[in-house]
Amino acid sequence: MPRLFHFPLCPFSRRIRLTLGELDLDAELNEEQPWNLPAGLLKMNPAGTLPVLVEDNRAVIAGVEAVSEYLEETRLPAGSERSLLGKTPIERAEVRRLVAWFDVKFHREVSRQLLIEKIDRRFAGPEQGGGAPNMAALRAGRTHIRAHLDYIGQLAETRRWLGGDNLSSADLAAAAHLSCIDYLGDVPWSANASAKGWYVRVKSRPSFRPLLADQIRGMPPPRIYADLDF
Amino acid sequence: MPRLFHFPLCPFSRRIRLTLGELDLDAELNEEQPWNLPAGLLKMNPAGTLPVLVEDNRAVIAGVEAVSEYLEETRLPAGSERSLLGKTPIERAEVRRLVAWFDVKFHREVSRQLLIEKIDRRFAGPEQGGGAPNMAALRAGRTHIRAHLDYIGQLAETRRWLGGDNLSSADLAAAAHLSCIDYLGDVPWSANASAKGWYVRVKSRPSFRPLLADQIRGMPPPRIYADLDF
Repeated sequence: MPRLFHFPLCPFSRRIRLTLGELDLDAELNEEQPWNLPAGLLKMNPAGTLPVLVEDNRAVIAGVEAVSEYLEETRLPAGSERSLLGKTPIERAEVRRLVAWFDVKFHREVSRQLLIEKIDRRFAGPEQGGGAPNMAALRAGRTHIRAHLDYIGQLAETRRWLGGDNLSSADLAAAAHLSCIDYLGDVPWSANASAKGWYVRVKSRPSFRPLLADQIRGMPPPRIYADLDF
Repeated sequence: MPRLFHFPLCPFSRRIRLTLGELDLDAELNEEQPWNLPAGLLKMNPAGTLPVLVEDNRAVIAGVEAVSEYLEETRLPAGSERSLLGKTPIERAEVRRLVAWFDVKFHREVSRQLLIEKIDRRFAGPEQGGGAPNMAALRAGRTHIRAHLDYIGQLAETRRWLGGDNLSSADLAAAAHLSCIDYLGDVPWSANASAKGWYVRVKSRPSFRPLLADQIRGMPPPRIYADLDF
């Protein structure tokens, strides 16, 4: 069985866990701390990012971009109805545009800010960048998330799923980032009903259940985090 | 003929221009200013990023991740020898890992810092974020680039090209970022001879020629920028 090195509140790791769930794939999960990766993992992925997938034959696939495309290429027949990227090149271009929206723009403006300040600073030692959170970064993340909820709401009002007619990696990327921030209690769900309605649908999927059971020691999530009726 | 909306010193736009050159594809180039994108372009790509490709049938493909995969999918037969991603899933995973290295890590640590401070701040109006460069950001970019040159050198010493035996999007992504910084005169080439040797080979390719002719008005590149013997 392949092994997935991940961190529960890493949005990129979460997208791959959701992908595994949606494709009915099993993997052994190895939890790592992003601020304190072991030397063996840094050798497998010198960028020091999660997730990293290791196949039974020891082949290493490092980083969310590589792992997500690799799972599609190796676990699904070409053109499969179950593709999380889409069936045509134009559908896939739209899904990849939206995945970049969340993995690049949302990450830079919201999830990186909030996760680094609230998680890494808290659990990392002083020599690993630990310390008091930067309040300006927290404020910036909490402000920017509102525009992203509006964009998700706008997409959800005109399409069945964010990328089009079918659930795709765009939904999984968006939900992976938002669910990390939801664990911190920082998603203002009342700000956009359409975005919330879309998230209720993703959160109800069986692939989401393991994420709702995640617990960071010493930092339990708010009650609404695992609640399907929040 | 498709149209590519780009900016000469945008590393993501540059990678697509190199990709078009390597695949012998023509496109009409439309130059845009990242700090002042017209409303029509923001409608095509609400993330406000370049490049954006528009097909003759008006289909819009937005963002480097979407455009690069789309060109492979639509312009090359499956499994083509000319693929810039690689022939097997494992080869492609390695190329995508390295593309993310440059588009995410190098961008955050080096090219975003230097390009925003030296280009956007200079040419953007005060209401678009213009003003004096942040010297700490410039210093950080100039420091971090050395570790990246060492990583490129290390790959170049053990492989023919960065991603393996063949030229790939990994080389194009690395060269796209580095060439922007080279235009600014901020690549310390003497710091790593192997990295420089690899760059000489990429820079000599016909696909690179249009990039070496780029000129930003009021900000000519240093002499060595276009020189193949630098």
